[in-house]
Amino acid sequence: MIRYGILSTASIVDRFVAGIRESGDGYVQAIASRSLEKAKIAAERLNIDNYYGSYDELFEDDNIDVIYIPTVNGLHYRDCRKALLHHKHVVMEKPFVLHSLEAIELFELAKKQNCFLMEAQKCVFLPTTKKVKELINNNIIGKVKYIEYKAGFPGRFDYDHWMYDLTLGGGALYGSSTYTIESLQYLFDQPDLDIDGTCIKCPTKADEICNFQLKVNHEILVSATIAMNVELKNEAVFYGELGYIVVPYFWKSKGLELHIHGQETQYFDYPYQSEFVYEIKHIHDCLNKGLIESPVMNKEKTIQACQLVEKLYQKWQ
Amino acid sequence: MIRYGILSTASIVDRFVAGIRESGDGYVQAIASRSLEKAKIAAERLNIDNYYGSYDELFEDDNIDVIYIPTVNGLHYRDCRKALLHHKHVVMEKPFVLHSLEAIELFELAKKQNCFLMEAQKCVFLPTTKKVKELINNNIIGKVKYIEYKAGFPGRFDYDHWMYDLTLGGGALYGSSTYTIESLQYLFDQPDLDIDGTCIKCPTKADEICNFQLKVNHEILVSATIAMNVELKNEAVFYGELGYIVVPYFWKSKGLELHIHGQETQYFDYPYQSEFVYEIKHIHDCLNKGLIESPVMNKEKTIQACQLVEKLYQKWQ
Repeated sequence: MIRYGILSTASIVDRFVAGIRESGDGYVQAIASRSLEKAKIAAERLNIDNYYGSYDELFEDDNIDVIYIPTVNGLHYRDCRKALLHHKHVVMEKPFVLHSLEAIELFELAKKQNCFLMEAQKCVFLPTTKKVKELINNNIIGKVKYIEYKAGFPGRFDYDHWMYDLTLGGGALYGSSTYTIESLQYLFDQPDLDIDGTCIKCPTKADEICNFQLKVNHEILVSATIAMNVELKNEAVFYGELGYIVVPYFWKSKGLELHIHGQETQYFDYPYQSEFVYEIKHIHDCLNKGLIESPVMNKEKTIQACQLVEKLYQKWQ
Repeated sequence: MIRYGILSTASIVDRFVAGIRESGDGYVQAIASRSLEKAKIAAERLNIDNYYGSYDELFEDDNIDVIYIPTVNGLHYRDCRKALLHHKHVVMEKPFVLHSLEAIELFELAKKQNCFLMEAQKCVFLPTTKKVKELINNNIIGKVKYIEYKAGFPGRFDYDHWMYDLTLGGGALYGSSTYTIESLQYLFDQPDLDIDGTCIKCPTKADEICNFQLKVNHEILVSATIAMNVELKNEAVFYGELGYIVVPYFWKSKGLELHIHGQETQYFDYPYQSEFVYEIKHIHDCLNKGLIESPVMNKEKTIQACQLVEKLYQKWQ
């Protein structure tokens, strides 16, 4: 059994814990919050035996193999560094860190500490994403020319929520762009990626809607829109010369539609309980093999994603 | 009757001639081609009495009030200038000219010659476009936050066609971006528009697929994709806080879908014979009032559109 410590009671934790349990060989050892009361409530709700009122206690728990970090984006660097210094393996939610130099530093530290470190990018481990890769590689939709990603999450938070505070890693681009970037990295085997983009900022100076473009290997155009202020159709569409693939809710997709021009639409369904289970099984594979880096969601991909996002934010200043 | 001279036998001519006739008060006086044989064939097909084997003869025909210019984009400036110097009113296809200084010069010349000059932007005169404006102004979809335009015309031409020659005004952006830009100008009453964008070039150096973004009055984000290399869903979608509007084939639309969150979709249909008829009726209104500039598709809009497109091409060099 691989024993997890969960750092914080963020809303994503419930689904990640469900994924650990669905994996069959993961065990949730403890959960920590800065508030003992909140840790206790979460532990009871999630049926976790141990809970701590400080992150340090979690880092120091010798019965934990892996720390899962889903804290506020802007605190990832701090929390990951501390976990690694305590010789814990780390799985950290996207976006990994806000600055690419921090990412490089953390992977160097992980190597030094002989600890596993991976960005929690569930999207690339989904059966749907694998199926898209297979369809593209087998030329089923012909040469891919254009890809569109769209996601809208309106009205979820107020402007005083950290998701609207850029210094804490808020904003639409930090929020969701890595689903797009890292899917592309996976689908096209670490391609050359150029980025550009435009955003509209809200009064807190965070981007509340953005559209960014990526060129994949100088030959495929990608346009991605992420909105915190309006509902969009949540999907990815891959346009090839022979047809197109639609992936509803591409970051937690349960299936896809294959449209070949002149043919009937085909549907492929991939049901799951927790969308995290595929990623978690991969983590366990890596740990069981003694790896300190995922061969799939590797440091090159995470660092490149950080660099691309950083480049856009610099342009938007 | 307003008497038209048609400059060239471009493929668009048949639909424009149909629009003149559908208008009820327009008459096609003559058609000209650089080849007498081609002019004759077109005149017979379109039932036009007079045809010329040179453009000069058309310019010199005293029985013509308006010259319609649908020549190769890169020749617009030359042809328009000559028509104006011959004291003809001019309606010229989009994109108006390749460089904004040429547009400024032509509008100055038209004023000096006391001739009507308008960019042929059928999109803004369509009943569907008017309906979108009405729905937005009446706040039916709430505050608009995001607009998406998509158009794909694959496999229409070979790389040796002028549509792939940038010096002649080829490329995806020159081809179709003004539908988007000038619709926005109309819908939001000559708004402030920022542009940025990315393209993928084909071997001829023309952009065969591009994605550009506009910020409307610093508060609405627009993403537009135009592809000459792949089939896309051809539509415009206006996303507001309460719902969204879908306009299939927005540049020649026959209706729209209104989606209000939580309500049944409403459909509005606006059938026509030629999509040019609304634009042509507007031209006749202007001419009957003795105007030399359209109050709708005015010189400010055309010059701004030229400037925005020019800015992107400069970036793409």
